[in-house]
Amino acid sequence: MPELRRDPIIGRWVIIATERGARPSDFKYPAAVVDSSQKCPFCPGNESATPSEILAYRKTEAQNKDASGWSLRVVPNKYPALKMQKTIDSWNDGMYDCMNGMGAHEVIIETPSHREQLDEMDSERVEDVMRAYKERIIALQKDPHIRYTMIFKNHGRAAGATLSHPHSQLIALPIVPIRVKQEMAGAKTYYDSRNACVFCDIIREEKLKAQRIVGENDNFLALEPYASRFPFETWIVPKRHSGHFEEIRGNEVTDLALIMKNTLGKIRRFLKNPPFNFIIHAAPAHEPGIVYYHWHIEIMPKLSQIAGFEWGTGFYINTIPPELAAELLNRKS
Amino acid sequence: MPELRRDPIIGRWVIIATERGARPSDFKYPAAVVDSSQKCPFCPGNESATPSEILAYRKTEAQNKDASGWSLRVVPNKYPALKMQKTIDSWNDGMYDCMNGMGAHEVIIETPSHREQLDEMDSERVEDVMRAYKERIIALQKDPHIRYTMIFKNHGRAAGATLSHPHSQLIALPIVPIRVKQEMAGAKTYYDSRNACVFCDIIREEKLKAQRIVGENDNFLALEPYASRFPFETWIVPKRHSGHFEEIRGNEVTDLALIMKNTLGKIRRFLKNPPFNFIIHAAPAHEPGIVYYHWHIEIMPKLSQIAGFEWGTGFYINTIPPELAAELLNRKS
Repeated sequence: MPELRRDPIIGRWVIIATERGARPSDFKYPAAVVDSSQKCPFCPGNESATPSEILAYRKTEAQNKDASGWSLRVVPNKYPALKMQKTIDSWNDGMYDCMNGMGAHEVIIETPSHREQLDEMDSERVEDVMRAYKERIIALQKDPHIRYTMIFKNHGRAAGATLSHPHSQLIALPIVPIRVKQEMAGAKTYYDSRNACVFCDIIREEKLKAQRIVGENDNFLALEPYASRFPFETWIVPKRHSGHFEEIRGNEVTDLALIMKNTLGKIRRFLKNPPFNFIIHAAPAHEPGIVYYHWHIEIMPKLSQIAGFEWGTGFYINTIPPELAAELLNRKS
Repeated sequence: MPELRRDPIIGRWVIIATERGARPSDFKYPAAVVDSSQKCPFCPGNESATPSEILAYRKTEAQNKDASGWSLRVVPNKYPALKMQKTIDSWNDGMYDCMNGMGAHEVIIETPSHREQLDEMDSERVEDVMRAYKERIIALQKDPHIRYTMIFKNHGRAAGATLSHPHSQLIALPIVPIRVKQEMAGAKTYYDSRNACVFCDIIREEKLKAQRIVGENDNFLALEPYASRFPFETWIVPKRHSGHFEEIRGNEVTDLALIMKNTLGKIRRFLKNPPFNFIIHAAPAHEPGIVYYHWHIEIMPKLSQIAGFEWGTGFYINTIPPELAAELLNRKS
């Protein structure tokens, strides 16, 4: 019997179609291949192929900007969707609202290696990636016009990556994306009625139930959410309540790197290097100490085409229940 | 200069990245090919390959059920995500809400021809497709448990179609999908503040501006919306205010068939048979006479992978402004 399950944050219903009995081998997705056919602008030696770097981690500070020798590098997107400006203009276009495209679009080149994935890197270097995210969010949000900084990673062409060299992206926006607004509103409704953070409650519930957990350490829990939209959708949630990613502390960065490595490794091994996206979900900028929202990372393997009605209606059919996904990911390979 | 434009219904901001200067030829999408490699369960003569028909249009009523000779046929989905049941059960699963997967999942086989597209059919037969939608919505919504009936079409494998024989789908649900709830809420907010339907206002604004219209007749307007999420996103909006598709009247069905043929034809010719989805957006069942919501059809050509952050955040970057899309679609070919 299929089930309709409700996401407790935004109230989205999902069909968990257990009767369709899909097996992971039923999905026909292209693995995320390494493309080495063209000169890679993100490889060491090709630094001049990107705009000048904004941030880089090097062994010695003495090294020149835009020279090789870095272990991580942040550069502006060569074709940015938005550019930082001193002012923000907004106007009416007939009945509609419009503003100039003020903001930032940056690329975090995670490693000098063209093929080493996040989960294969030393955990200290994964920590560096998380620190670079934090550093850039803090720097960009000094501008009061920036209302939201979105961090995400597209891995594999089917997940939207146009270059295969491991990288993440950052978009800083003068508006709050609609999904963030909806999550904030849903989490606030939950808080107002129960006086508790819905994510803190999810952590307690999932630990009690112990059927959907795929990783845990002192500071983080990795789980397949109850109302997963996609097969093997996985969330990484900090145990300490905090609304903003950039509030993460030293020992938490260490644990986040470890659980990211472990979780992405499980997904890569079990699903054989699938295309995936991850997105950091966090509260908008300039709202410190938020009690009802809790930052987390959502990892979405892209195993099938999202059919039209799914992204047109927000109504999803998932053929792998999260309990089964957790069992499969936790199997010793 | 890129622009951030706000959708006036749900308040979604979209980047219209004019500076990136994409041309339609920059998109690399697989055309929607006709697959004739396997026995097609939707072709005449193969009626036994589908579950028994729910509805069919035939020249004479005397013909047998599930026999050939039909011009349109509606059958249950062979692998339904949901099944109709006499009762609906809902329960708590720890902190979560769950219900049994009650509902219906049907396929509207639009034509006996394996390759004739909607826009190539005689307009009387396109009217039949629209009439079949209406007939099924009315029949299913007699059940008070059905809260929403979703009609959609996936065309081409990249848009989620698994069979190439022209067909649409229907999913009847005991819940209201989240995007519908959000549209209803947004339209109600607009109505409450201005005492007007936002869609009626859009029709007036677009006719005044005359830059984004791709088709018009007595009863319908086809337009590229101001805050288009996707290149060549196209909406078909009835001029008469009405919340529900099934409230459509006789002469309106004629005009809807004509504007669907014309609009889908423009998209197919200019973009060379692209994959696309369309979805009928309408108010939930059992809410007659709704003043603030207005049914319409959203057509979304699928010219690129939707990158992770786009469906994770509801924040889209569109590289073809709707004004340019309208100009291109309206060009004499």
